Amino acid sequence: MPYVNIRVTKEGVTAEQKLALIEGVTDLLSRVLNKNPATTFVIIDEVEMDNWGLNGESTTSRRKREAAGAA
Amino acid sequence: MPYVNIRVTKEGVTAEQKLALIEGVTDLLSRVLNKNPATTFVIIDEVEMDNWGLNGESTTSRRKREAAGAA
Amino acid sequence: MPYVNIRVTKEGVTAEQKLALIEGVTDLLSRVLNKNPATTFVIIDEVEMDNWGLNGESTTSRRKREAAGAA
Amino acid sequence: MPYVNIRVTKEGVTAEQKLALIEGVTDLLSRVLNKNPATTFVIIDEVEMDNWGLNGESTTSRRKREAAGAA
Amino acid sequence: MPYVNIRVTKEGVTAEQKLALIEGVTDLLSRVLNKNPATTFVIIDEVEMDNWGLNGESTTSRRKREAAGAA
Amino acid sequence: MPYVNIRVTKEGVTAEQKLALIEGVTDLLSRVLNKNPATTFVIIDEVEMDNWGLNGESTTSRRKREAAGAA
Repeated sequence: MPYVNIRVTKEGVTAEQKLALIEGVTDLLSRVLNKNPATTFVIIDEVEMDNWGLNGESTTSRRKREAAGAA
Repeated sequence: MPYVNIRVTKEGVTAEQKLALIEGVTDLLSRVLNKNPATTFVIIDEVEMDNWGLNGESTTSRRKREAAGAA
Repeated sequence: MPYVNIRVTKEGVTAEQKLALIEGVTDLLSRVLNKNPATTFVIIDEVEMDNWGLNGESTTSRRKREAAGAA
Repeated sequence: MPYVNIRVTKEGVTAEQKLALIEGVTDLLSRVLNKNPATTFVIIDEVEMDNWGLNGESTTSRRKREAAGAA
Repeated sequence: MPYVNIRVTKEGVTAEQKLALIEGVTDLLSRVLNKNPATTFVIIDEVEMDNWGLNGESTTSRRKREAAGAA
Repeated sequence: MPYVNIRVTKEGVTAEQKLALIEGVTDLLSRVLNKNPATTFVIIDEVEMDNWGLNGESTTSRRKREAAGAA
């Protein structure tokens, strides 16, 4: 009967990748805790990059820095 | 002083239905726990069907199966 | 398939009151949005009063003030 | 290693304001609890006004009343 | 940079099982979305059975029924 | 009308520190977004170290490694 909430930045996650997350988490909870898939919820939240901060900066800034650093 | 978060799939919930949820939950907390409506928050999150999994499949797939089964 | 999270301060909520919340919310979602109770989750979080702030003060302080004011 | 989720109504919050929130919360947790900014997450959720209820009404209605009252 | 919140009923989950969930989810996000484990948070919430409702009843009642049905 | 949820590991956070977080966040939202403190909620969740994973390990293990490394 688990509820799982996955939050990631909104950066082009495909329907196939979302399904792989849903299947993977459902399977994990079934294997580790014997939880019933029929009552396992997985909700994926995609968060705008301006709205996600790490280390006191937004992900928008972080990605720009990373891109510049990789150049 | 309660906080209530209602998460449902994004399938055309109207403003009237949202209001009915807000009123219903606020009233319930007032009746059951004597909570003050003036400090009762109700937040509704509408989640894309690809992003909500149950039984290891997305709601998009589930709805397709249900529609096919109903034919 | 809704998920509802109710957060209230931990102030002696009884099992009967919790059940009334669970039943009330499940019924509300069934009536307003035609959601299936068999896949409606309701989770109640009871939060310590020191951990819940409103108006820049903890609920512990707020309750003390209210009790003093009522004397 | 803290996780902070800030939920506000979607009413034109700018990227600069979001950054000020991210910086402010990260700094607060560093000062008060000595938490490492490198593993401090801040996620801002902007919620549609129809989806946020207070005192049994939506924020959409509340803002209309406030605007009328101010006239 | 994902944040994952797993909510399950509090029914004797061991430290080993918690670690298996943490490792499994971290690995899944690395494989599916190429997310960096160094900034992948996994938080497990164990919820009292009286506080978790499904189908309009608490898990406490549900487990009693299941135990009776199994006799 | 903001809702802020701060999640930290349960490692002896004092009532004074909790109050400092509540005051600091409420003040920040008032300054940056002109939000009314009277309807600003701040909820602090303290999470057991076994239940918080980062980099595929629990905080319990992480703290042991850090303590050993510091010796």
